[in-house]
Amino acid sequence: MTTTATPAYDGLAATWTRLHHYGHLQSIAGWDQAANMPPKGQAARAAAMAEMSALMHRMRTDPELPTQLQRAEQEPLTPLQRANLREIHRQWFGANALPESLVQRRSIAVARCEHAWRQQRPANDWQGFLVNFREVLALAREEAALLSQQQGVRKYDALMDRYEPGMTCAEVDRVFGEVRQWLPGLIQQALHKQAQRHAAEPLLEPVGPFALEAQRQLCEKAMRLLAFDFDGGRLDVSTHPFCGGVPEDVRMTTRFRTDEFLGSLMGTVHETGHGRYEQNLPREWLGQPVAEARSMALHESQSLSFEMQLGSHPGFAQQLAPLVAAAFGAQPAFEPGNLHRLMTRVKCGLIRVDADEVTYPAHIILRYEIERPLIEGDIEPEDIPALWDHKMQELLGLDTRGNYKDGPLQDVHWPEALFGYFPCYSLGAMYAAQWFATMRRSMPDLDAHILAGNLTPVFDWLHKNIWSQGSIWPTDELALRASGERLNPAHFKAHLQARYL
Amino acid sequence: MTTTATPAYDGLAATWTRLHHYGHLQSIAGWDQAANMPPKGQAARAAAMAEMSALMHRMRTDPELPTQLQRAEQEPLTPLQRANLREIHRQWFGANALPESLVQRRSIAVARCEHAWRQQRPANDWQGFLVNFREVLALAREEAALLSQQQGVRKYDALMDRYEPGMTCAEVDRVFGEVRQWLPGLIQQALHKQAQRHAAEPLLEPVGPFALEAQRQLCEKAMRLLAFDFDGGRLDVSTHPFCGGVPEDVRMTTRFRTDEFLGSLMGTVHETGHGRYEQNLPREWLGQPVAEARSMALHESQSLSFEMQLGSHPGFAQQLAPLVAAAFGAQPAFEPGNLHRLMTRVKCGLIRVDADEVTYPAHIILRYEIERPLIEGDIEPEDIPALWDHKMQELLGLDTRGNYKDGPLQDVHWPEALFGYFPCYSLGAMYAAQWFATMRRSMPDLDAHILAGNLTPVFDWLHKNIWSQGSIWPTDELALRASGERLNPAHFKAHLQARYL
Repeated sequence: MTTTATPAYDGLAATWTRLHHYGHLQSIAGWDQAANMPPKGQAARAAAMAEMSALMHRMRTDPELPTQLQRAEQEPLTPLQRANLREIHRQWFGANALPESLVQRRSIAVARCEHAWRQQRPANDWQGFLVNFREVLALAREEAALLSQQQGVRKYDALMDRYEPGMTCAEVDRVFGEVRQWLPGLIQQALHKQAQRHAAEPLLEPVGPFALEAQRQLCEKAMRLLAFDFDGGRLDVSTHPFCGGVPEDVRMTTRFRTDEFLGSLMGTVHETGHGRYEQNLPREWLGQPVAEARSMALHESQSLSFEMQLGSHPGFAQQLAPLVAAAFGAQPAFEPGNLHRLMTRVKCGLIRVDADEVTYPAHIILRYEIERPLIEGDIEPEDIPALWDHKMQELLGLDTRGNYKDGPLQDVHWPEALFGYFPCYSLGAMYAAQWFATMRRSMPDLDAHILAGNLTPVFDWLHKNIWSQGSIWPTDELALRASGERLNPAHFKAHLQARYL
Repeated sequence: MTTTATPAYDGLAATWTRLHHYGHLQSIAGWDQAANMPPKGQAARAAAMAEMSALMHRMRTDPELPTQLQRAEQEPLTPLQRANLREIHRQWFGANALPESLVQRRSIAVARCEHAWRQQRPANDWQGFLVNFREVLALAREEAALLSQQQGVRKYDALMDRYEPGMTCAEVDRVFGEVRQWLPGLIQQALHKQAQRHAAEPLLEPVGPFALEAQRQLCEKAMRLLAFDFDGGRLDVSTHPFCGGVPEDVRMTTRFRTDEFLGSLMGTVHETGHGRYEQNLPREWLGQPVAEARSMALHESQSLSFEMQLGSHPGFAQQLAPLVAAAFGAQPAFEPGNLHRLMTRVKCGLIRVDADEVTYPAHIILRYEIERPLIEGDIEPEDIPALWDHKMQELLGLDTRGNYKDGPLQDVHWPEALFGYFPCYSLGAMYAAQWFATMRRSMPDLDAHILAGNLTPVFDWLHKNIWSQGSIWPTDELALRASGERLNPAHFKAHLQARYL
């Protein structure tokens, strides 16, 4: 055995490499569960994955780790090693902060609530939901209080930190507060402009049915346009589309319906952004936390760079149009201009996951404004419907009274106690706009490139500034290095104005 | 914690349940590697699976286990627990018998030999092969000597025991010695009879191409005829067909070529036998060694019960014929009688994996008669070609001189040091014949049932006597309980005579 000047750090790095290998098997098994597994495989798969989770948890809660972490802090580390140690410490904290008993009570409460919610949502049963949800919220508050005490941050910040390290309510308030000022007005302006356009030149709807195999091939072609590496990944079908697998072998999934194709297609474009981020994380550090994707908002900034900034660009619609016509036969609706109008249609709706990029932030701001006081103890679950109704009216002008199933029951996040996750979606959209604004500053001909079908400058910029950086920098610093400023929602506003007004 | 009268046994059972869960993930990852994984996923997958193998090896070589095994022997166990302990002991022995250094040297030598063999076989390079193979054989002899000393059995027996517990050279000599007496004559008679039949009524060849998707659907239909449970398993495509996954979720694979369909179809029927054995192992003991498949020969007795006894029965050909015609369009060759003749065509050939059920044992006997003295040190690798040529002439009347690639270089078993494996194939064929002879004794109308398309009596018998028995009994006793006698090759002879003479 060779001796090094960093034995404690090396020991930690070796443990995290083992975790990476175990996580690989866990991740592939999870993908398989969603994409392949026949129903009778469920119990055995759940038992096997639980065994692996328990092993990984034992490794992350090894009582030797605190000493090893302290010693490593004193060792002469390179800047990259120090960044890696910071991320190891963060993962260690995440696994050790809560007492086992709380983790167990929470997972039981979440399982009960989520299971019942599957029936309660279609039944519009808000009162039934409240019974289980009160317990879930009580445990989430207990968790937030504990984490808040340990980290010396606000309760909601402590929960958000699990998804978006370093993000705070103060920052979200600043950003969402700004957006809230101009968003309702911008939505109305965009709708008005769209109505005028529709009146002048009717929007043509695609005519189905759209054969599944043709859709699958079309999605794969779109992924190739976006330079997804099929030697290091796949596209398959699952009920809930996701981007899974491992950086070396990215497993994207989608789902198809025969009466509509644009949803799957743009969903695939979205997941391709996640996929290319994973495929291009720094390989020389693979297996260490510093080589992992930075955060949820950063990940979403990549999927939305692909789906919204690039995928809904008129230049991409132009590239896609002949592929769509080849897949389903020529239709007037597939003309590039019309296809682009279909891709960028604005509509105030009740359902977050169906929202377009203009109205989406309204759904997120609403949820943030409810779940934050919920966690801080300023409101109770009973208060949700009235707040929901009021804010939907205020932000989107929609009446949601009595419609719980398309209201506060629509998302899996609350039954699953994923408090602090929602903001990441819109922070991601804002970061994506910021990246493209930065690109345009240094490459004034960027849109000409995209219109000409040359996407390489975009990929090169994202590779250099985001993908290859993994988790080397805290998110704020990454943004600063990439774009010269911290998160600035003005770029998102400018993007929406340019595209929709 | 509750106290039991069997703490040591319970501890062992808990360890083996964990091994079962880890093995589940390993098995699904292995199937995925063959059926799905893109090329760039290879290195990460290999590293993850090696990490898991190392973990499972550490568990099986835990220095506490010998004491725990000794204590468990003294505990008041039920007969099933005692059978399970016997199998746990066997798996423990398998993992602990050899020093790490020998295991490592062997795996390096095997990797080198197998890798070079992939080029040497097509190049007919016997001399080149010998260079690496001498090293593989030297290590296999070292291994056999060590295991033989520890177990007090002959060297070849010690190697064979890994695949076929309890099987001995004495037994194989008895069985193969008997078969060797009548097989060459029976082959010649079968060929003569077939030639007469062909002259009287020409055999019709199917006309391709055969569309891949139609083949896949046909294979799935055949699997449904054979009652494969698609709620607990799948059929996919891989380069080398196998039956993998776990008992709760069986992953079968096959491969297709457009110029021929019967090979894939009957290969799928074969793997379905393996698959149904796995799907019907005793569920109440699942996760413990006593619930695992008994042995390689027993597993092969199931795949050959399906492929040869049942799948090549005129009654199954009758059921298959309309499905084949539906898949590829009607052809005179798809008439049930002709289809059955195609399925049971006899031909002396050089290649084992292409052999029919009549000539197959000749390939196995030849290999056994070479690898056994090779392990015992009675012959050297240089002696193989002359022995091969002589025995191929003697058994099948074929001239193999100078043709190494279709001779001793054709199988992966020797480069991979899988000595002692070959006999299992033919022992399996003989057990399969014995099971069907037993069924016919208790159900004289069995063939009428099969001809009428009712396969349930066969499945019920196999379920009761083989599948549900797992590893409760040593193989000899299982055979005795199922059929009233130990392995008796007379049933195989009677089967071949009835079908081919």
